[in-house]
Amino acid sequence: MSATPHRVVVLGGGFGGLYTVQALVRAPVQLLLVDQRNFHLFQPLLYQVATGMLSPGDIAAPLRSVLAGHRNVTVFQAVAAGVDAQARELIVDGGRIPYDTLVAATGTTQSYFGNERWQDDAPSMKTVEDALDVRRRIFSAFEIAELDPVQAERDGWLQFVVIGAGPTGVEMAGALAELARGTLRNDFRRIDPSKARIMLVEGSARVLPGFAESLSRKAEARLRKMGVEVRTGTRVTSIQGRRAALKTGEREEVVMAGTVLWAAGVQATPMGKAIAEATGCRLDSMGRVLVEPDLTVPGHPEMFVIGDLANYQDPSGRPIPGMAPAAMQQGLYAARTVMARLKGKTLPPFRYRNKGMLAVIGRNAAVAELGRLKLSGFFAWAIWALVHINYLIEFDSKVLVLLQWAWTYFTRKRSARLITGEGGLMKLIRRGGAPDAAAERGRAAG
Amino acid sequence: MSATPHRVVVLGGGFGGLYTVQALVRAPVQLLLVDQRNFHLFQPLLYQVATGMLSPGDIAAPLRSVLAGHRNVTVFQAVAAGVDAQARELIVDGGRIPYDTLVAATGTTQSYFGNERWQDDAPSMKTVEDALDVRRRIFSAFEIAELDPVQAERDGWLQFVVIGAGPTGVEMAGALAELARGTLRNDFRRIDPSKARIMLVEGSARVLPGFAESLSRKAEARLRKMGVEVRTGTRVTSIQGRRAALKTGEREEVVMAGTVLWAAGVQATPMGKAIAEATGCRLDSMGRVLVEPDLTVPGHPEMFVIGDLANYQDPSGRPIPGMAPAAMQQGLYAARTVMARLKGKTLPPFRYRNKGMLAVIGRNAAVAELGRLKLSGFFAWAIWALVHINYLIEFDSKVLVLLQWAWTYFTRKRSARLITGEGGLMKLIRRGGAPDAAAERGRAAG
Repeated sequence: MSATPHRVVVLGGGFGGLYTVQALVRAPVQLLLVDQRNFHLFQPLLYQVATGMLSPGDIAAPLRSVLAGHRNVTVFQAVAAGVDAQARELIVDGGRIPYDTLVAATGTTQSYFGNERWQDDAPSMKTVEDALDVRRRIFSAFEIAELDPVQAERDGWLQFVVIGAGPTGVEMAGALAELARGTLRNDFRRIDPSKARIMLVEGSARVLPGFAESLSRKAEARLRKMGVEVRTGTRVTSIQGRRAALKTGEREEVVMAGTVLWAAGVQATPMGKAIAEATGCRLDSMGRVLVEPDLTVPGHPEMFVIGDLANYQDPSGRPIPGMAPAAMQQGLYAARTVMARLKGKTLPPFRYRNKGMLAVIGRNAAVAELGRLKLSGFFAWAIWALVHINYLIEFDSKVLVLLQWAWTYFTRKRSARLITGEGGLMKLIRRGGAPDAAAERGRAAG
Repeated sequence: MSATPHRVVVLGGGFGGLYTVQALVRAPVQLLLVDQRNFHLFQPLLYQVATGMLSPGDIAAPLRSVLAGHRNVTVFQAVAAGVDAQARELIVDGGRIPYDTLVAATGTTQSYFGNERWQDDAPSMKTVEDALDVRRRIFSAFEIAELDPVQAERDGWLQFVVIGAGPTGVEMAGALAELARGTLRNDFRRIDPSKARIMLVEGSARVLPGFAESLSRKAEARLRKMGVEVRTGTRVTSIQGRRAALKTGEREEVVMAGTVLWAAGVQATPMGKAIAEATGCRLDSMGRVLVEPDLTVPGHPEMFVIGDLANYQDPSGRPIPGMAPAAMQQGLYAARTVMARLKGKTLPPFRYRNKGMLAVIGRNAAVAELGRLKLSGFFAWAIWALVHINYLIEFDSKVLVLLQWAWTYFTRKRSARLITGEGGLMKLIRRGGAPDAAAERGRAAG
């Protein structure tokens, strides 16, 4: 159309967005990657930050560093506010960015299903800040228990409730069990961390509901062996302070838990709504954009929506899991479509190639569903480790994480278990009741 | 006196406190270590966290993990509010801890010499949170510069002012120069990070005023070669938003700097004042406790004050530098005194053994003063690296840091350059003037 190269603006530097950009770096296009953060995050390993095994730096790759070698790629750290579909401009804080092709890949955020007030007492794990908050809460709970002179209070602080038994919830419950029964075993004098109670709550009938039933059973058995109380068919009816109300069938129960973690649901980021407002497209109940078979917004072939932000109906009829491989495949497809169009060609519709699903439970324990092959135990765990090591090395040569893992594997030590950030122990304790005046004075003086 | 073992309470898990505890683990005493954090911090390497080379987890050792093997050591994470010297009890948030011997080692905090309002615009570097705040500011400055359409604004964001040219200031200025001219060189498209201006401001006549004059000259020459503007004999008269007013002799100048960092001074933590109130002892102008030749508080042989919290007049007349080796020697001395007393013996007064001073400037560049031996350049740097590696391994087998360093040394990559935490870019930009309404909207939507 014009003499300037085709301008591709990619919004979001997650697996989908980064794959789109990387697949286009040698194409005759001008690339702009916009992200509100300056790093790509290996979200599948966030639970290891939350449980003190890795540091945030270990699972993040600076976007600029990943793309430094490609002169046709510009990176902007900016927050997107919306799209002007008519003018073909992305609206960001402080300006407008014109595009010829837009690829929206902002993914999901946590969902509390209308109970957003639970967020303060039951944090979720979508960002680095979330993971550090969860890390602070987990390790603080043990610290507070060691200090508390009242037995019932101590028991409460040693109770952990994980809500949602999808892959993240299962990973968290497993990691908590290993933390309490392994890493921290000899670290306290007045409490016995191995007596910590870890409860995994799931609304549906089995853990890992996205997996085959036989793997759900194996995962549950393994979790129970590790000392996790699995409560399937159980819904949360309220969370307030350190009290969580659970309902199993007609039976109701209130549990006192020092730490409640939310791994129960996600919804599309607000960009989904912004795209709907700009184009009149439809959203599903999770706020995801219903896309065409070529992953574009209906009526807007220049606008792709990929990854978790998109609801794509695969011809197979099976839902596409909200996992990294799906986002990467869609990023690759969007990039190839852009290249094909530049040559006046079109591509057949996107098809998701199911490369399998993995969920890790703990050391030497995972479940893997690879087509018809179903694995559990050590082999599934070895596959999980290889796949994740491969991701890490692909994006930023994170060979050191390997060594960190090897170290943790053999020693069971977790050296990244820092309690950092604002508030500290007192803020957590105060959730439980009235602030202690003496403690307040202590904080002020210290 | 009683049948229960002698109770030693150590307040502070820094170099002084941790050394005291470690020297007593095999003694017939009951040990309690109290710290407001759950980790020991290798403060000498904090500047590497602030400049994106290491993660906080790399330079921290969980106190419980370090001491897990010793059943006579209890660790409490609590904030100390004061001392009841009569009752021999340490007052912490929510309780009192009785002691037979107290060792206070809470160290120093930053001092703005009465200009505490400068803190928001010129953060210092004493805690992990400080270092992460500084990291956020440094990397955000480059991000904002890349986005800003106004040339003068861009130049301002690429200007860094480090106040104070002691070891920390020199390390920071050197690391900033390497960051801008090395690591980030190819990462931006609209700005040239190597054009960043780095200014090191020092009130006295030379950089590293604690070192021999010949080494100060060498350090300054090296800094200049790395592109650092060194301003000695220059005082800061005001810091507000992104403006710092400097005064050299009679000449006054206002510099626009996106990032101002404070490395100019320290003062004793509030525990010094609390001890003075409890015992009537004297404090020096920095708030440090003037201790007896055996490091105890006058009239209170059961109360030791060690490390940076103490002002100890060495018989040699030379001041003891506020560095890890001095704190460690004092911790060892306090521990030995406790053991000697249990056997009815006394020790000769504490004497500081000057093992030398080190300051690192950058890759292959440091200065070392080892008695009469004065080294600079690669050999000083190699000594610096060995000494710090030794510390790291001694406390927590941090062999991985070594590999991280080796990696950074050869590739000049810094993978821990995450911009995390509350606020982000907008908070920093807003310091410069009125908030941008469009930007505000962007944040709310994103």
